[in-house]
Formats: sequence, structure tokens, C-alpha cells
Amino acid sequence: MLTYSFSDLGSDSLYEYLYKCIKQDILNGTLAPGDRLPSKRSFASHLNLSTITIENAYAQLLAEGYIYSIPKKGYYAADISVGAAQTPRAPLPEPMAEQARGAYFADFTSSQTHPGTFPFSTWAKLLREVIGSHRPELMEKSPSGGVLPLRQSIASHLKEFRGMAVRPEQIIVGAGTEYLYGLLIQLLGHEKIYGVEDPGYQKIPAIYQSNQVACRHIPMDKHGICISQLKEQGVDIVHISPSHHFPTGIVTPIGRRYGLLSWAAEKDGRYIIEDDYDCEFRFMGKPIPSLQSIDVMEKVIYMNTFTKTLTSTIRISYMVLPAHLMERFHQTMGFYSCTVSNFEQYTLARFLQDGHFERHINRMRNFYHNQRDTLLNYLKNSPLSSRITIMEEDAGLHFLMGVDTSVPDKDILQQAKARNLHMASLSQYYGTECPFGEHTFIMSYSSIAPERMEEAISRLCQVFLEPMGSRLDG
Amino acid sequence: MLTYSFSDLGSDSLYEYLYKCIKQDILNGTLAPGDRLPSKRSFASHLNLSTITIENAYAQLLAEGYIYSIPKKGYYAADISVGAAQTPRAPLPEPMAEQARGAYFADFTSSQTHPGTFPFSTWAKLLREVIGSHRPELMEKSPSGGVLPLRQSIASHLKEFRGMAVRPEQIIVGAGTEYLYGLLIQLLGHEKIYGVEDPGYQKIPAIYQSNQVACRHIPMDKHGICISQLKEQGVDIVHISPSHHFPTGIVTPIGRRYGLLSWAAEKDGRYIIEDDYDCEFRFMGKPIPSLQSIDVMEKVIYMNTFTKTLTSTIRISYMVLPAHLMERFHQTMGFYSCTVSNFEQYTLARFLQDGHFERHINRMRNFYHNQRDTLLNYLKNSPLSSRITIMEEDAGLHFLMGVDTSVPDKDILQQAKARNLHMASLSQYYGTECPFGEHTFIMSYSSIAPERMEEAISRLCQVFLEPMGSRLDG
Repeated sequence: MLTYSFSDLGSDSLYEYLYKCIKQDILNGTLAPGDRLPSKRSFASHLNLSTITIENAYAQLLAEGYIYSIPKKGYYAADISVGAAQTPRAPLPEPMAEQARGAYFADFTSSQTHPGTFPFSTWAKLLREVIGSHRPELMEKSPSGGVLPLRQSIASHLKEFRGMAVRPEQIIVGAGTEYLYGLLIQLLGHEKIYGVEDPGYQKIPAIYQSNQVACRHIPMDKHGICISQLKEQGVDIVHISPSHHFPTGIVTPIGRRYGLLSWAAEKDGRYIIEDDYDCEFRFMGKPIPSLQSIDVMEKVIYMNTFTKTLTSTIRISYMVLPAHLMERFHQTMGFYSCTVSNFEQYTLARFLQDGHFERHINRMRNFYHNQRDTLLNYLKNSPLSSRITIMEEDAGLHFLMGVDTSVPDKDILQQAKARNLHMASLSQYYGTECPFGEHTFIMSYSSIAPERMEEAISRLCQVFLEPMGSRLDG
Repeated sequence: MLTYSFSDLGSDSLYEYLYKCIKQDILNGTLAPGDRLPSKRSFASHLNLSTITIENAYAQLLAEGYIYSIPKKGYYAADISVGAAQTPRAPLPEPMAEQARGAYFADFTSSQTHPGTFPFSTWAKLLREVIGSHRPELMEKSPSGGVLPLRQSIASHLKEFRGMAVRPEQIIVGAGTEYLYGLLIQLLGHEKIYGVEDPGYQKIPAIYQSNQVACRHIPMDKHGICISQLKEQGVDIVHISPSHHFPTGIVTPIGRRYGLLSWAAEKDGRYIIEDDYDCEFRFMGKPIPSLQSIDVMEKVIYMNTFTKTLTSTIRISYMVLPAHLMERFHQTMGFYSCTVSNFEQYTLARFLQDGHFERHINRMRNFYHNQRDTLLNYLKNSPLSSRITIMEEDAGLHFLMGVDTSVPDKDILQQAKARNLHMASLSQYYGTECPFGEHTFIMSYSSIAPERMEEAISRLCQVFLEPMGSRLDG
């Protein structure tokens, strides 16, 4: 069987190293086209690695086309020469590179759900049933806002879970919130001035800029976005996440919420986009009532997504439009086809109706609760414990970690990278300058494999306590 | 068993009438919540209707939430009162109305694939296999342009089928061409002037207008879009379908194609969007080489979709970017998530790799070939034959029918509607005035149920030969 020495592992993760070895053997012909690769299990025991390591290496090779798989048979070396035209040796462009994100031993910047948590068997079962029993509907063009059964089950989910009274017609289903932001710009107008939270989730201003609309970075105080600044900068549409701000974790209190609503009420054409992206994962107490549920002026556009709760690889999100915007949408944009396939719309509808979603959320909440506690526990018992402060660990899927250190953030991130950890510092999330300064890190734990946590934390300690200068220099 | 008299059917289709009867019985409580509806087959024989009629009625009731289905059990009356908040009696807005499109006895305006043609069992099988064997990839974030295996199989499909040499990295997969148009506007710029074909597919200018970019209607001559007009109106980006123009069916000859390429080459920032939406369904001779395949100046953006070949309810389309635009996309827009779910990306990749797509296309080509011949045959043997001229029947999924009549188009369409036929006239597809004047109709036959064709044509004859003035008046 294939055998590799992991002696010169260097800074590679085991998975990454193995992937490189096999890739090399395929490129130099040691593995000929069609050669069968060892089964994951036997390879794992042969190399004395966990099967997940083999799995990740194979997945990467598969994704890059170096190997192919035959279901129930196994993995085989691909014929590289044939695909030469399609798979150049040249460095692959951006998106291919993205694939390599999986290469980190632990990625504290990723909000992806942990692969192990997706309810494959339930989803597959429902999908099978839908294909078996809903053929006419599956072939019937979906309304532009989504098929009614899905919008109805989302409406009842919002009623039970968020106490929101919403008509299915107000719900617009789309392939991810990024897509829905684009629709909103078309609905609300390119000439409007959009305001985003500073600091905030970087993709949002990126999307407004990509659509060439005016976008202002509005500072946050400890209660959320600053209303005075909204007025000063002439913002029309403000885009916020009051239930749990990313990355600071601020939960906007009710007073500020009413303040925002009255700001919106002061002028026609002012709206609030409420991004409720991870309300399902609040650990302490009940979730805060949404802005939408206390809005009587039709000023709030509510947004949520299943990409955080189910998996980011099934693209289903939705927004709830106030009545008058719903009318406008159907009149001016009703010609758009819904971007989510009927197959997945009906499957998700069933998943919600039959109570699977609620059960899944509860499982996930426990899973993440554990993730967080385990991680914090390792931190508490680590040599770092005396030098860190944990903030905002009670809402959502990340916490902030202040570290007492003099090393600049960019060097820390370098050191982390050298040890195959992907980290982000708070300072990176500011559109303008960062008032809090440096040494605060955002620890997203949703994607960290439980079996890797201990090792990840010990590497984290090395990052802060054992600089690798010598090794980095030479 | 439920029994309804179809005596006062009026202008309703059987399906629509039955749907209304059952809905009424549910609203007035004759059918109580939880009451089981008759099985389609027994109901059909009881009412002496085809099961498809029952199926359509049930599908509509299901879609609107009046009934629910329990797989392998049957259909049941829903509890309307409970859902009251969500399902108002008030007339449903736009998208719900769309659902009713199915209500036409025959829809000559729809380019939807015929439901019967979708390869359900193959698709379900591949989906099952993908879920069984690709779990790591299914949970791995897709590159913004789509997962590599899908882009590779699209590249080889384009190579074999269209003789196009394309690298997978140039291919951007997205949830429908409408979505990809939006991405292109972001990539090419809002300040650019876009030109569309006049006449043309109405959604395209609608999308440019919705994105608030300048959009000019450029007249067509018998070879395609007029280059002189492109210059005169200062167009930067022209959006055309040279392989088969909708609705005129014009195939742009090679001379005009080079003319267009040289127009684009004259100036930086000029591009041609080549919409190849139905090249797969050309019946006579080989498909025309794509503009993209003869473009050496990186001026052509090629677009195609699986919504026409597979089903419009699975939203997968793609575009091929010239190298320099590909770089720009990955640099400036690479942060976008791909809008198609991994589950369907990997399933489609398998569908292409294993040759199912090619077989499916061939089956569909025969199916549509038959559709067209049967329809033309019925027309030839109908009382209309002496008064109609058929044009452009050899490319794509529609033909033009000129009719020798003095009745204005709008009255004809009214008459058709009264007989439950949905028709469109050429004049409707002009952004400006229609030079050809009236009396030419666009006959799209892809969605017409074969068993309904004879009846559809006889109704069509009535439309032209037996005006229903009296009935329309009162």
C-alpha cells in the first residue's frame, strides 16, 4: 500500500501533507491513471492517521480533479494529461484557491457549520419522498418569492420561534442573503445612501460597493449603531444585526431599537434592514424580539438564512417585506424567477413542517454550546489563561478574546498561519480606524472539529508564547 | 365520493373548474379539515376525467395550502382557519397568480419543459449516490464560480457539443441567467450603455431597467441586430442570441458575426453577451459555431442554461468569461458565494459526466421534433391551413405563424383566452413600434401536452374562424 513518511511534515497539517504527497505521485506518474487508491479506513490504519485526515486529503484531490471516485468502489488516480487543457498546472485562480481553506488545521474565522452536523439521512429521506410524491409541483414554475408551502412553513416558524406575525406573501425566498441584498438594492433604489455597521461583516459593504451604490461606514457604540451618525451622514437605508452584532457581539437594547424605528419613521424612503443571521443560537435567555415584530410603520425588512443553521452549501435565505414593499416587489420585480430549486424548496418545507428543523436547531445549540465550553475550558487550563479576557460568549457562534501581548496583530496572524491556524483580529473588521486598537481576536468555533480543539489551543498558546522567529526567518 | 357537475364549466378548463369546486367545499366546510380526498385514479374514473386533470387540480390546491398530502397515503383537506393569519381570503398577490398559469388548456407562450420529460429516476439515483459518496465535498464551501467537477464537465460538454475550448476557471455557475445578468452588470459597470434586441425576450431589458442601467432597444434586420444602430446609440455592451433569435428565429450569418466582433474590437470596454439559450434544440444541420468560439479579442461573454434542457425548476445556468474578465471577476467579485446548492452542482456534474445529459438532449430533441410535427400536421389539416404561413420552424422550440385575418391581435388574444389558450403576438415583443405590423403569432410548443394538441388546434381554429362576440358581450 502507498506509504509516506511524515518526518518532514513542517508546518503542514497531516491532511495537507498527505494531499501533497499523493498529488505529487499522480503528477510524476508514480500513480498511473486509473490506479485505485487505498480505502480510507485501511489507509488510515496503515499510516496510523484518523480516517478524517484521509477523507480531507481525498476530498481536496477530488475537488481539484487529481482523483475521481466511483460510488461504492473507491477513489482512482485521474488521467491528468487528458484534462490538461482544462486543468492547467499554472496556479489556479481565486475560487480554486478558496477550496484550500479546508487546509487549515483549525479555522477560527469560518462560520461554516461543522460537516458532521448536517442531518444527511433525514434530508435524503425527505428529498426522496418529495421526488416520489410531488412531481407535478416540482415541475411547476415557482412564484418569484418561492413556493407557497415553503413560505407558509417559514411564516409559522417565525410565529412560533420569533413571535412574528407574517403573511407568506411577504416572504421572499432567495439563494442566499447576498443575492437578496442585490434584490433589495433594485427594490429600494440605487440612488439611496446605505449605511453599514463599523465594525461589521465585511461582505455587506463589499456587496453595496459592487452594486455601485453609496455606502457609509457608521460607527457603533456599546448599544449598537449610532443614530446621530446616521443623520449626519444622510443615510437612507441602514443595514444592521441588532440581535447579535458581528463581530462585537453587541445586542442592541430595546431603547436603541425604538430610537432606530423613530429615525426611520422621520422620513419617507428610510428603511432598516434587520439581519437576524444567527438568532437561533443565542444561549442565555430568550432571543430578543426582532425589530420587525415591534415595527408598526412598515420600516423594517427582516432577513434570515438557513445557510447558518443547516449548511452554507444549500443556498436558501429569505426576507420579510413590509406590506407596501411587498406590493412594489410583486409589481416591479415579480418577473424574476426564484433562484432556489423547487426540489430544495419543497424538501425544506417538509423539513420545517415535520418539526425536523426545530429538533435540528436544538441539537445544534447543544453541539455549539459544547464546542464553546470545551474551547473555553482548554483556554482556561492553558498557559494563556492568565493573559486572556473572554467577551460576549453568550450569543451566537463566536466570542472575542482579548490578549495581553505587545506583539502586533499582523505578526500574531502570521504566527498562527505558520502553525496552520486561521485567525482574525477585531481590527480587521473596521472600515475606518479601530478605536479599541489591537490584541482582540474573533474566535468563531462553529467549524472547529471537536477532536482537534485540544491541539488547536496548544498551537494557539505557541503562537502567543513561543514566537517562531528563527524558523520564520530561515 | 365527491361529485361535481361540469355543466356550467364556462370558459374554465376542466382542471381549473374542479380546483374551484373543491376549494369552495373546503372554504364552506363541506370538506372538513382532515377529510381525505379521493385518490386521483378513482376520482378520475368516477368523474370520467383524465388523471392529469385531477393531478393538476390537486397540485394547485396543494400549492395554495387548501389541501395537504401524506406520502403514500393521499391528499387531505387542510384546516384553513388555523392558517387564517397566513392565508387570507383576499386575492393573492402577483406570484401566487403566476401559479394559475397552469390553468390554460394550452399555453403557446411558455418555454417551460413538458413535466413528463424530466428524467426523475436518473436524477434521483444520482442525487442519492452523490449524498452517499460525496459528503465531505457537499459540506465544503463551493468556489464562487461553482465546484470544479461541474465546471470541468461543462467545459468538456462545450468542447464536444459546441467545439469551444474553455477552461473550467472561465465558467461561472449561477442560479439562472437572470442572476448572471445581474452579476455581469456589476462586473462590466452600471455606467455602461446596454443594447438589447428589438424585438426580443422581454425579461432582458426588464432586468437592465430594474438595475437602473441605460438600456437601448436596437432594431433587427433579417441577419440579426443592426450594427449601425449600435454605433448610433452609443452602445457599449450588446446582448444578443445569434444562434436563434427569440422570437423571430433569425440565425445570424457568419458575416454579421464578424461584423459584430469587429464592432466590439473597435473600442475598449465593448462586449458582446452571447445568449445561447436553446442551441441544443436546433433540428436542421449542425448548430452554428458560437460567437465565443471565433472570438480572439476576448470580447464575447457566452451564456447558457440548463433550465431549458432539464427543467426551469432547477436553477442552474452558467457564463464563460474571457480571460481578463475572469481575472477581474475573481479579484473584485470572488467574495460572492455560488448561488447553486452543492447537492445539485455535484448531481448535475455526474449527470453530464456519465453521458445522461447527452442522452437526455437526444430524447428531448426527438420529443420536441414530434411536438412540432404533430402540431404542424394538425394545423395543415385544419380549416386554418389555407390562411396561415409558418416561418422559422427549424430552430428552437417555437415557430412563427402568420395568419391572414383582419381581426386585430388584441381581439385574437382575447378570443384565445376565452377558449383557454394562451397566445402571444409578434407585435408584443417590440420595445418600439412593430414594423411587420400585426397578425403574426409566436407558437412555443415545448410545454403543450401531446394529448391536448388536437383539441388545442381545433380551439385555435375557432379563435380565428368562429368569433365569440355574443358570448364575450354577455
